[in-house]
Amino acid sequence: MKKYLILCAAALAMAACGQKNAQTVGVITEPVSASTNIEGCRYPMVNPDLSVTARVSAPEASTVALDLGGKVYPMSKNAEGLWEVTSDPQVPGFHYYFIVVDGVKVSDPSSKLFYGCGMMSSGIEIPEAGVDYYLEKDVPHGEVRIKRYWSELTAAWRTCYIYFPAEYELNPGKRYPVLYLQHGAGENETGWSTQGKMDTILDNLIAEGEAEPMIVVMDRGYAELAVPDPAASAGGMFNFTAFDRVMTEEIVPMVDSEYRTIADREHRAISGLSMGGFQAWSIGLGHKDLFAWVGGFSGSGRPGNPENFPSSLNDDYRLLYVSIGTDEPEHMYSGIYEFHKMLEENGVKHVYYESEGTAHEWLTWRRSLHQFAAMLFK
Amino acid sequence: MKKYLILCAAALAMAACGQKNAQTVGVITEPVSASTNIEGCRYPMVNPDLSVTARVSAPEASTVALDLGGKVYPMSKNAEGLWEVTSDPQVPGFHYYFIVVDGVKVSDPSSKLFYGCGMMSSGIEIPEAGVDYYLEKDVPHGEVRIKRYWSELTAAWRTCYIYFPAEYELNPGKRYPVLYLQHGAGENETGWSTQGKMDTILDNLIAEGEAEPMIVVMDRGYAELAVPDPAASAGGMFNFTAFDRVMTEEIVPMVDSEYRTIADREHRAISGLSMGGFQAWSIGLGHKDLFAWVGGFSGSGRPGNPENFPSSLNDDYRLLYVSIGTDEPEHMYSGIYEFHKMLEENGVKHVYYESEGTAHEWLTWRRSLHQFAAMLFK
Repeated sequence: MKKYLILCAAALAMAACGQKNAQTVGVITEPVSASTNIEGCRYPMVNPDLSVTARVSAPEASTVALDLGGKVYPMSKNAEGLWEVTSDPQVPGFHYYFIVVDGVKVSDPSSKLFYGCGMMSSGIEIPEAGVDYYLEKDVPHGEVRIKRYWSELTAAWRTCYIYFPAEYELNPGKRYPVLYLQHGAGENETGWSTQGKMDTILDNLIAEGEAEPMIVVMDRGYAELAVPDPAASAGGMFNFTAFDRVMTEEIVPMVDSEYRTIADREHRAISGLSMGGFQAWSIGLGHKDLFAWVGGFSGSGRPGNPENFPSSLNDDYRLLYVSIGTDEPEHMYSGIYEFHKMLEENGVKHVYYESEGTAHEWLTWRRSLHQFAAMLFK
Repeated sequence: MKKYLILCAAALAMAACGQKNAQTVGVITEPVSASTNIEGCRYPMVNPDLSVTARVSAPEASTVALDLGGKVYPMSKNAEGLWEVTSDPQVPGFHYYFIVVDGVKVSDPSSKLFYGCGMMSSGIEIPEAGVDYYLEKDVPHGEVRIKRYWSELTAAWRTCYIYFPAEYELNPGKRYPVLYLQHGAGENETGWSTQGKMDTILDNLIAEGEAEPMIVVMDRGYAELAVPDPAASAGGMFNFTAFDRVMTEEIVPMVDSEYRTIADREHRAISGLSMGGFQAWSIGLGHKDLFAWVGGFSGSGRPGNPENFPSSLNDDYRLLYVSIGTDEPEHMYSGIYEFHKMLEENGVKHVYYESEGTAHEWLTWRRSLHQFAAMLFK
């Protein structure tokens, strides 16, 4: 208990001494503490060339390494006895990372943690020169609400995060369109509003008049039916039967009954990233009575079934959207690119966007959301 | 990148296979996965005697230990090559814990993490036999909203969590009293709604008619003034000058202007745990124009200044409340107990509560909130 108190007192002191975190737009000219650090923690730092310097105290460990961006950097003890290493320059945006202590991959105690890769993972924000659409500005801020609801289909309490535009509270008579926005595999309902900065992106777009004020519902893209359904278990990770039912039979009705939505397909969109993008295309095209706007960021319809994507979709949907990062793994890039070409060949109108220089990561998806949200409900 | 994908696919598969987590009221009759585990993770498990069995994969580590409840349990490799240990029986409620790998204290990848002890910490929920006031029931659920606001005093964006009772949305003409509820040192604005289960406690109390529907504001109890003030830096961790100013000059006015509050002292309470309890007494008694209800859970006024607590407080405040766990460290217990005796000697009416068998931890504070919230605004 005493140990706990000493730790906490130290943390308080650190918080009080208030090391400033990086949050300026544009080029950084000297090493700065990452904005994703726990307050008061100096390391990891981002250097002007966007490399990352990490430091860890592990006096008894034999080997310590930094695992960042798919590369493992062995750390060595510096003059102060702390393990340290500087990575290669990183792409701007948000990256998960880990510390590997004697072969065990753990999160960095100096970092805020983010649910990704199926666990609470360290994350680092690398500043992006000259880009501010996902940075907090002096504009009205919406709220993200943590909504718990009972799901009969799964016999469980579920939680979703719901963004409301700043004006929602001020206009008690007004109703709003809704975007359903899904996370990727290994992430959860918290991803878009933390790693994705969706609330800041929407606040800024709405304040600039570039997007319609809208509600954004972010649910957890997993579901296990209380009454097992063989149709829900075949086909592995691309079988979204259970989540499809939760989304269309429970989440959408719950949102429409509890909030001031415009409850028709013309005012309902669905999108998501990676697994969430595949879900959005699957659910969106499977329920044209519910959705008129469909998007997938690094996720799309399944390219193997071209007959499922006929030109009649042009009459059914107001927007079909697909995006991919140019630096994503080849099989991901080609899967999305071929899907886009197939739509073209089938005469299906759609917006196709390539995020230049980004991988299968949050900057691809922030850019996609920024573009997609501005097109909705117009 | 491939590694990331494999990890995520594995996580997805684990989530889909859906190991059930413990959440039944009352006695457990067989080992159950902790409800605080990442979904799909079987360990740590809670045994019928409330001991905890933890397991970690760390094939290359020389020593691995479980750090739980202030005691370190060395782990040893089991038949499967996984490090494993079973702890002593634990007190029910929520406890922070850590895994120590070759001397490095890290969070457990199998656990959800909670901001405590100045970092993202593993936490384990131990079921409490026959107690359900902090468990989710089939009652109307309020929402916790994540509110960001600009603080001029600290020249920074700040975040607070705000609970709204379920009926808030349904009664657009009704105004509500407000409880300001602070976390402890090393924790932050997320503590009460995660570790503390405050939203579930309030949902249940309100549904049973035992508490008035109220708004609960949970801010981050640290502040560093943009224009340094010598008065704010003297005296160490018990100097709350900066946070006092943020609370009274920024947070309270912001909440009163943006939400349907009853904006007078009779409908405004302040409380908190540990450091937050000291803050609540300091700010509450320092601003009797703002607050009529004051509480401290394992935190109180400073006992060293009895003249600051005269019987005239009986005219000024509707409720003064102090609580402490009987198993808290001696100096904490005696500090609060002596404060209570001093109030008695000074003729200051107050409610004093001892939480039987609990230490400086969340069960003490859940019990205190459950009792305190039911007394407010009546």
